[in-house]
Amino acid sequence: MQTRLEDPPQQTDRVEAIEHTRSTELGQHVGERVYVQGWLHNVRRLGGVNFVVVRDGWGTVQAVTESEDDLAPLRQGEREVQPESIVRLTGMVTATPQAPGGYELLQPQLEIMAPVWEPLPVLISKREVKASLTNMLDHAVTVNRHPQRRAVFRLAAAVMAAFREYLHGRHFTEIQTPKIVASATESGANVFKLDYFGDAAYLAQSPQFYKQIMVGVFERVYEVGPVFRAEPHDTARHINEYVSLDAEFGFIENHFTVLAMLRDVLAHIFAQLEERCGAELTLLQARLPVMPAQVPHIHFAEAKTLIHQRHGHEVGYMDERAEPDLSPQEERWLGAWAQQEFGSDFLAVTGYPMRKRPFYTHADPTRPAYSNSFDLLFRGLELVTGGQRLHLYADYLNALATANLPTQPFESYLEAFRYGMPPHGGFAIGLERLLMQLLDVPNLRLTTLFPRDLNRVAP
Amino acid sequence: MQTRLEDPPQQTDRVEAIEHTRSTELGQHVGERVYVQGWLHNVRRLGGVNFVVVRDGWGTVQAVTESEDDLAPLRQGEREVQPESIVRLTGMVTATPQAPGGYELLQPQLEIMAPVWEPLPVLISKREVKASLTNMLDHAVTVNRHPQRRAVFRLAAAVMAAFREYLHGRHFTEIQTPKIVASATESGANVFKLDYFGDAAYLAQSPQFYKQIMVGVFERVYEVGPVFRAEPHDTARHINEYVSLDAEFGFIENHFTVLAMLRDVLAHIFAQLEERCGAELTLLQARLPVMPAQVPHIHFAEAKTLIHQRHGHEVGYMDERAEPDLSPQEERWLGAWAQQEFGSDFLAVTGYPMRKRPFYTHADPTRPAYSNSFDLLFRGLELVTGGQRLHLYADYLNALATANLPTQPFESYLEAFRYGMPPHGGFAIGLERLLMQLLDVPNLRLTTLFPRDLNRVAP
Repeated sequence: MQTRLEDPPQQTDRVEAIEHTRSTELGQHVGERVYVQGWLHNVRRLGGVNFVVVRDGWGTVQAVTESEDDLAPLRQGEREVQPESIVRLTGMVTATPQAPGGYELLQPQLEIMAPVWEPLPVLISKREVKASLTNMLDHAVTVNRHPQRRAVFRLAAAVMAAFREYLHGRHFTEIQTPKIVASATESGANVFKLDYFGDAAYLAQSPQFYKQIMVGVFERVYEVGPVFRAEPHDTARHINEYVSLDAEFGFIENHFTVLAMLRDVLAHIFAQLEERCGAELTLLQARLPVMPAQVPHIHFAEAKTLIHQRHGHEVGYMDERAEPDLSPQEERWLGAWAQQEFGSDFLAVTGYPMRKRPFYTHADPTRPAYSNSFDLLFRGLELVTGGQRLHLYADYLNALATANLPTQPFESYLEAFRYGMPPHGGFAIGLERLLMQLLDVPNLRLTTLFPRDLNRVAP
Repeated sequence: MQTRLEDPPQQTDRVEAIEHTRSTELGQHVGERVYVQGWLHNVRRLGGVNFVVVRDGWGTVQAVTESEDDLAPLRQGEREVQPESIVRLTGMVTATPQAPGGYELLQPQLEIMAPVWEPLPVLISKREVKASLTNMLDHAVTVNRHPQRRAVFRLAAAVMAAFREYLHGRHFTEIQTPKIVASATESGANVFKLDYFGDAAYLAQSPQFYKQIMVGVFERVYEVGPVFRAEPHDTARHINEYVSLDAEFGFIENHFTVLAMLRDVLAHIFAQLEERCGAELTLLQARLPVMPAQVPHIHFAEAKTLIHQRHGHEVGYMDERAEPDLSPQEERWLGAWAQQEFGSDFLAVTGYPMRKRPFYTHADPTRPAYSNSFDLLFRGLELVTGGQRLHLYADYLNALATANLPTQPFESYLEAFRYGMPPHGGFAIGLERLLMQLLDVPNLRLTTLFPRDLNRVAP
């Protein structure tokens, strides 16, 4: 019956057959003739010396030649192929300290595999992208190919990997929880509504309920996934779909246990970025934070007092009694204060007033108007929200009654607490915000692959 | 300014402070007195010998005592606390070959941290869950705590980790693409519609368009995330939200390159399950497949001929001219055939007719009515769809025209091909289906954490 099997092309029946030299591996092939495949990034003719730069998925390779003939494949009839044409570039690898990356190809042979005939809507062969934010986002499909742009998203991948790696080492189990949910329960507002076979359903604002439920199963859980916020904010630091790095775990003492775990997670993430992403960090001129052995923290009430003393009459100050929250300006002031006092890029503000926190928040046993929760500021912007949750069934019933919420929509959620839950807590890190602050870019949309906001749902 | 910082409880300012002995680590503490924390799983009084079983996030621990006094903390007044109460159990670790796991605790001291007073809706202390599917799913919040149930989802976590690990080693980059999309483009049907600030938007059926676009950026990409299918199927093998393991990569030869990569990914996944998940596999009596060095494959047309010869008059046979697809029964016949002919749990059916494949599918250059694509059957069920995609802009324009589709909704997608894309392809593995076949369970809902189907969107 062997004859029933097709004969596949012999060269393609093993993955190894398609492996070729990557741009970042040239140093292993000095003196050899190799080929790279990729996108024609740039062609420069500089008075008798010609440079051809090819970009593959990991970097760029430069070929040098004095012979105009070597560039002949670029011309097809009267026309010359445009950047982004798919090419194969063969050449002799030589170490050249002044070349980008330290190596270049000599005696190049260029082959056009798929020509491009139109100039790009936004040029990506220069060191930086020169375009308006709107133009960049409209053409994100090609603009994200720019080495600086894609470095942002390579860092995103490294952050996710390091987040998982640390928590896996701490015996956390990964979960993937549903994004379509039955009721707009968590806050009751700002949820996207969808048509679910004729009934209403909603997009999950966070995996909060499910990650708590799963503490009952695995004790320690994490999830990396999309969350959906129908907030009608049109600011530089809000988008309506983003990637949340969530963790939740049981048998904690209080929110300081959660903060300690968060500190270790972030320390691992930044250490891994330093180790694995040197090229990307350099390209983006990123300054990694120093992670203190313990994150400095200040109680919300103390923070408000401090701000009142120093900035009480300035724009951006909010009186605690009127608005029990921190304004963006107050967060920046606190960030600057933490930098000045402790030399720290991070500051945890603990004990946010209970009336600003969701019903599942655990109160501070000694000051019940305040919560066992925190926000972590990174360079003056809220990066993480975390804290201890209620764990006793009776406390949930009380909290819902206090919040004037019915129990019925929460029935399944409450089942977890009715049948045994330990003291627990967790946190959620916004991936795009972490990158925004790390890279010091002015808009969250610049660290989001394909952002969704009030006015944009494409590309 | 140190005084502005709170003094946190000293025992909780380090993560290490909350680490205690996990159930799976008892072997490291023989002869020591340790404590475990968790859920009261079971209490058995067997004629003078009492067993208390505590479940933590990773396994169970059994304590043995002849003294009824040691069980006294279970009684509070007239009542006895119920299973799932949160407890701390201290005892002397001893090696006992006949105990579950090989160790047990002697001279136990039991402390009730949070009592449960009601019996569970579905009992989870027996070896197997005895309940109807509906009852199990209605109470998934607590039923998923059952050791067998949670083993399923521990395997899910291991599959995701191994998938990423293999592809990372092959220089793939992880991406997270948007789930809210502007148009119901991929197939035009079976998408969930949502209200996006007053306009219509849709939930992504797959990351297909975005992963192809990202081949233009990273050359090799993968994504693990939710996909949403508004298919009104009410079968044991369909759900409406599931986890898709997607990969896509450039510079392939054809769909056999994709199949070779897929084979290596699956081989790594099953090898990792064997290495890391022995306890779960044993608990679920799972039979790991043997992964052949090359996946046997048969062309769709040959498969149809084979089925016609052997089963042409049986129920489940579909004539190719009437329905260019495989019926579930035909998939099972082919699965049995692959087992019999090649001793393989896997069979790739290649070259599905173009008219059953989406517009971006690459045709077979030698037989244009058939495609350069495949379905991978795992024990007679479609597990993976994969193949080569079109990569030339002109081919996309032709394909859309042939399919009678307008170009406007695809404008951003087409930008990728207009500006240079290499030959590429990829695949998508359904996580829950992989587990369903691996564990030989009759319904996909049993390998889904909180399934969504026609009739269910909670818990």
